[in-house]
Amino acid sequence: MVKNSLFFKKAEFSEIKSYAKRLNSESESGEIGYYDLPNFGDEIIKEAEDFFKDKIYDNIVLVGIGGSSVGVRAILRALRAKKMRARLRILDNIDGFRFDTITQSIEFDKTIFIISSKSGTTVETISIFKAILDFYKPSDISKNFIFITDNGSKLEKFANQNNAKVFNIPKNVGGRFSILSAIGLVPMVALGLDAKALLQGGAQCKADFFDEKDDTLLQKAYHYATHKYAKINVLFSYCDRLAGLNDWYVQLWAESLGKKLGHTRFGLTPIGLIGSKDQHSFLQLIMDGTRDKTVSFIKILDQNSEKKVPNLSLENLDDLDFANGICMSEIINLQCDATMHALINEGISVDLIEVSELNERNLGYLFYYFELLTSAVGIMFGVNTYDQPGVEIGKRILKSLILKEQI
Amino acid sequence: MVKNSLFFKKAEFSEIKSYAKRLNSESESGEIGYYDLPNFGDEIIKEAEDFFKDKIYDNIVLVGIGGSSVGVRAILRALRAKKMRARLRILDNIDGFRFDTITQSIEFDKTIFIISSKSGTTVETISIFKAILDFYKPSDISKNFIFITDNGSKLEKFANQNNAKVFNIPKNVGGRFSILSAIGLVPMVALGLDAKALLQGGAQCKADFFDEKDDTLLQKAYHYATHKYAKINVLFSYCDRLAGLNDWYVQLWAESLGKKLGHTRFGLTPIGLIGSKDQHSFLQLIMDGTRDKTVSFIKILDQNSEKKVPNLSLENLDDLDFANGICMSEIINLQCDATMHALINEGISVDLIEVSELNERNLGYLFYYFELLTSAVGIMFGVNTYDQPGVEIGKRILKSLILKEQI
Repeated sequence: MVKNSLFFKKAEFSEIKSYAKRLNSESESGEIGYYDLPNFGDEIIKEAEDFFKDKIYDNIVLVGIGGSSVGVRAILRALRAKKMRARLRILDNIDGFRFDTITQSIEFDKTIFIISSKSGTTVETISIFKAILDFYKPSDISKNFIFITDNGSKLEKFANQNNAKVFNIPKNVGGRFSILSAIGLVPMVALGLDAKALLQGGAQCKADFFDEKDDTLLQKAYHYATHKYAKINVLFSYCDRLAGLNDWYVQLWAESLGKKLGHTRFGLTPIGLIGSKDQHSFLQLIMDGTRDKTVSFIKILDQNSEKKVPNLSLENLDDLDFANGICMSEIINLQCDATMHALINEGISVDLIEVSELNERNLGYLFYYFELLTSAVGIMFGVNTYDQPGVEIGKRILKSLILKEQI
Repeated sequence: MVKNSLFFKKAEFSEIKSYAKRLNSESESGEIGYYDLPNFGDEIIKEAEDFFKDKIYDNIVLVGIGGSSVGVRAILRALRAKKMRARLRILDNIDGFRFDTITQSIEFDKTIFIISSKSGTTVETISIFKAILDFYKPSDISKNFIFITDNGSKLEKFANQNNAKVFNIPKNVGGRFSILSAIGLVPMVALGLDAKALLQGGAQCKADFFDEKDDTLLQKAYHYATHKYAKINVLFSYCDRLAGLNDWYVQLWAESLGKKLGHTRFGLTPIGLIGSKDQHSFLQLIMDGTRDKTVSFIKILDQNSEKKVPNLSLENLDDLDFANGICMSEIINLQCDATMHALINEGISVDLIEVSELNERNLGYLFYYFELLTSAVGIMFGVNTYDQPGVEIGKRILKSLILKEQI
């Protein structure tokens, strides 16, 4: 169960209905592929299950950056309480120290490497892949390596020539919108997690929005898109295990909505916080600082732990006995409530996402929910939510700097 | 070596000299204790060395939240390449699942617990401490527990009654400015890290600023404090191991500068990014989005790794051979340069902090540098940089919510 409640004034339906219509047509046009991912993943799951069925491995090393890894890490961290079939390590930065640390801690024969790059030409990913090949010098790439990439990419061609297994991402699904595609599903199957439930959660969110016509998400998007002062959106997640989801949200939001149209610049800045610990750091700025933020809280109702603060009274510290006998997860959720109340009293725009527990289905729901929210704000801004022209220039400069070095 | 270069227009010295004077008097007044920490830590280090000398332990568990742990995690992550005497785990959230995970992975007799709370009455910290006592039921607290807290706090009284070792933080040093006090020094000594070098780095930064009168820091503070549009400050650190330093900076900046004076609200919003991976997520927003950000880059010149991209040309992927033969750390630093160039070309205010390597001395320098920068901006805003009135209300609401639950 995932439930969103808004604590700010809703707009009249007449103000938002044209956006609902445009989101509908965008979804139905088939041009933006992520909308349909919940309906098309079963085949990939079957393919992955067949592939991993007879394999023996202790470790999975995912080599991928940006959209190829940030969602997988969100799943891995959120589902930490689940039993997994192997240990997943992620190489998402071109860092020799980290490369050495990971290669020293795994046995090649018991490791599956997933090389994940949508374009197939991400220089960091391919360079790390080369370093792995150079380090282990495998005679047969098809044994320990699988590839996730676009149909027809150069990386796919390389994989095919080496008879290695390739999983494709649909061409019209952008990297940061791809977590319900092979990008997320294949690592989940490899870990023994319930990838089908992830898709079902996404499908549920889709149905709530498009079939049940629940207008909560659209109201929230409209509030964000039209807010005069609040250009920063805080996601305040009250559970350590949601740190990865925060990071995934930050990249989705930042890269999708930071756009220019002619000379006009758009953009909402995302920030991910973890409660209650960030109450001891960032909260002061939200409470007393410039009024430029909205805050979205996430609360996990069942946190897979019955651990209580014991009924112990310590000499001189009995002032704090008010927490005795209470479940730690209940305290963290009460802290969420307390902070929410304080912000609402200050007139800050707040909403609450309640999640019954951290499982595959709810995660799938949350992924789809934030993707839809992003699309909705993008439509309201009138920008292209799905490209990233601003990061290409840095890539070109990098190449020219490296070539200059070599002269 | 730590060197800061600014890529934006400096102010006339006449504009900033009064602030230099006020920072000087604040530092000399003795009211704000962190300024003098580099001069007073040797005694604590000696005390800690004596205490840990004969102790046998494999694990250290630090229980602390906010200022009591975020700086320690920054040190731990930044110095990952160093050999440490024990494994440090941090309990910084009231999370039963994480409590169970950590207690299951340690042996009580080989563990030192550091209970760290400046006020001595942080409900999360004391509740976790109680859970530890309840779980292990130690007969003698003085054996496995040490305490870091204010002189005269209730936690100190408790520790004294139990004959346990206490390290004090000077009363006039705020939690988020305390990393060069016992808060950071004691865990460093316990880990076998060079705590003296940390202080020396802080002292070097202090001397550069107050004695050498290097105006770079003040120019940067003035640029931030008076910038019309850029109310968001991004710290873009090009090394995975700096993720903890980013988090420390975020809490320092947010909690110190998010303040109100009467009806006027101040505040600069900090964001921590890691390069190059966040080039694949957040960079688009900085490049094309609303012009509301400054960007400070950190580059580590020697990254403790000689790992190169091998001279390997893969079929179909030879477009990416331009990176062959280059050190991974050089690629990451060239990516930093490339992104910097791109942002400077866009007219965004940028500065670069070059760090020779990740060691204790340079970390001490960086901590002191960011603390001074925060103080300088606070003086320019005219706010109280050192309090946090906005977070108290949430604590009161929490207590009343818990008491209501119990009725």
